[in-house]
Amino acid sequence: MGEKTCRWGILSTAEIAKKNWASIANSGNGRVVAVASRSVEKAQKFISACQASVPVAHSVDAVGSYEELLSRSDIDAVYVPLPTGIRTEWVVKAAQTGKHVMVEKPCGVTTADVQAMVDACNASKVQFMDGVMFMHSARMDAMRAVLDDGKSVGDIRRIASQFSFCADQSWVESNIRASSQLEPAGCLGDLGWYTIRIILFAMKYEMPVEVRGRILNGVKRADSSDVVPMEFQGEMHFANGVSATFFNSFRTNHQQWAHISGSKGYLAVNDFVLPYYGNEVSFDVGNHNFSADGCYFTMEKFLKTQQVREYSNNAKNAQETALFRNFSELVNTGNRDNFWPEVALKTQRILDAALKSANSGGGAIAP
Amino acid sequence: MGEKTCRWGILSTAEIAKKNWASIANSGNGRVVAVASRSVEKAQKFISACQASVPVAHSVDAVGSYEELLSRSDIDAVYVPLPTGIRTEWVVKAAQTGKHVMVEKPCGVTTADVQAMVDACNASKVQFMDGVMFMHSARMDAMRAVLDDGKSVGDIRRIASQFSFCADQSWVESNIRASSQLEPAGCLGDLGWYTIRIILFAMKYEMPVEVRGRILNGVKRADSSDVVPMEFQGEMHFANGVSATFFNSFRTNHQQWAHISGSKGYLAVNDFVLPYYGNEVSFDVGNHNFSADGCYFTMEKFLKTQQVREYSNNAKNAQETALFRNFSELVNTGNRDNFWPEVALKTQRILDAALKSANSGGGAIAP
Repeated sequence: MGEKTCRWGILSTAEIAKKNWASIANSGNGRVVAVASRSVEKAQKFISACQASVPVAHSVDAVGSYEELLSRSDIDAVYVPLPTGIRTEWVVKAAQTGKHVMVEKPCGVTTADVQAMVDACNASKVQFMDGVMFMHSARMDAMRAVLDDGKSVGDIRRIASQFSFCADQSWVESNIRASSQLEPAGCLGDLGWYTIRIILFAMKYEMPVEVRGRILNGVKRADSSDVVPMEFQGEMHFANGVSATFFNSFRTNHQQWAHISGSKGYLAVNDFVLPYYGNEVSFDVGNHNFSADGCYFTMEKFLKTQQVREYSNNAKNAQETALFRNFSELVNTGNRDNFWPEVALKTQRILDAALKSANSGGGAIAP
Repeated sequence: MGEKTCRWGILSTAEIAKKNWASIANSGNGRVVAVASRSVEKAQKFISACQASVPVAHSVDAVGSYEELLSRSDIDAVYVPLPTGIRTEWVVKAAQTGKHVMVEKPCGVTTADVQAMVDACNASKVQFMDGVMFMHSARMDAMRAVLDDGKSVGDIRRIASQFSFCADQSWVESNIRASSQLEPAGCLGDLGWYTIRIILFAMKYEMPVEVRGRILNGVKRADSSDVVPMEFQGEMHFANGVSATFFNSFRTNHQQWAHISGSKGYLAVNDFVLPYYGNEVSFDVGNHNFSADGCYFTMEKFLKTQQVREYSNNAKNAQETALFRNFSELVNTGNRDNFWPEVALKTQRILDAALKSANSGGGAIAP
């Protein structure tokens, strides 16, 4: 790890940025220099709330506009949790001022948005990465090893995933995730981004040849022009015959599972997005066996839980801390990793295809 | 329970009939009188194998033809695990001779088959029932109570289910389940019957308004005229917006799970068809909670395993024993329960719709 410290700016005071204030504080190789909002007061209020929850020893500047933050020369990287509908503009501007950029998901409204962000980052030779925390968990390496060992799962046949939470009506009416201007992909953008990503992970980032989607439930707020998906199902089909199904919902209680089935067994993870509170993260591997002997037909259970020593959240080794540490490491060492813009683009292409399918009768779309 | 004993005949010597030899032996209110095959030798071989595994004190007759067994007056009920493609003829004949009938699944090749069976049973005032063991587990009552309590799951939103096992190539080439003449629905008939049924159970046997299906993998044996599904995905959509997805495969290792998600939580059962070996059967209820406090975003796990005191198999209280005990009880008391033919017809209608959809581009079919 480099000895330098990545100097962070945070663009917007979204709730998720509070968590990532702590991520940066715990990272060991970065610190927040400034937070920008549309007013100094809002930025200061955010900083005060964060200092009260996870205090840092240094001062953090409250900045009254995004432009002002981007114009500063004492900032290396920006974290951009702005609403998706207005994010592209600011990510491109950030890249143009030479800032490395970490963006919240869904990266853009469309693939063209993400391509514009990535192009701007490439032009300025800065890193682009989406803020998908679970990608940086040590659990992913352990899952990769199991998927690749040839005996735990064998040849992958089917992947199923669900990420949902249940919002009340007031949330729907107030939260940006139900606004067609700010978050037009609704639950597909907010939750589907993760289910698509875990499927891509299982498939070693191979792109599907066919994507389908269906809006199972949508809302149209009085202040929004279009229906926003509140509940969505999607499917992905790969060239080798593997199929995947995913479900996202703002109307179904907390669930965040992925089930990767193969010729020899399966891998099941029940909390792949935000791990259950605790000092370890885990997943299960099942290799059940059917045995028939005369009149005795028996299903033999063979289920193994594999643990990884990693705190669920708010710790030096938690996945969100690793996300910011890994990003800061790239910045501090002057390296760039093209994997991250590529995987963000792939995810967005699949998301776009799923939404396009949903809005055109559910037919097959090549992403 | 009546004091009479239901006198059973078994039509065919399918492997599954060995298990049900034990079911009848354990039931306490029935006994096997005769087993018919296409030769006395085959029938006797089956009886000897069963007697060696689960001996019964009385003698059991080996009969050399199905007609001969049906013509006997000392048989009240027949269990018919014949291949689906030839089952209708024998079920109708059995009903016409006044025998109560329990049939293996899928009940028929088409709904018309099942309707013919049910009509014949109604005409002769005999009971019709499919041999879905899990329907008779005490676990179903416990699951029903959880689904109905209003707080564990709340309003159902989504149901996902998978039933699969992995067959080797020699199995595909020899087993009737890959024969388009004998089992034209392949894995959809053999495994989908169960996933459709558990979804119907969750929905209190409400019929979906829309069904879709897709053959993900099929085989065409040299001796078969059509492609038989080896891997299948289906979906069911209900009038109240609930959606369900199911997956069946002969190419994916043993799995038999159902996941019923609602507004307040979920019910997950990992072995709903053939419970894992043991002296209890169980399912899980999850009501996880997301908590945000300053920079701390925490996923609180609340997972409860509910156990039911019931042996997995080959016991007096096992589900397959309950299946035959419940059927024998109807026969012994002279009662008929119309629920069973109705639920078999519903299941077959959905199966037919899923296959029709799959064979016509995946479009929506009203079952």
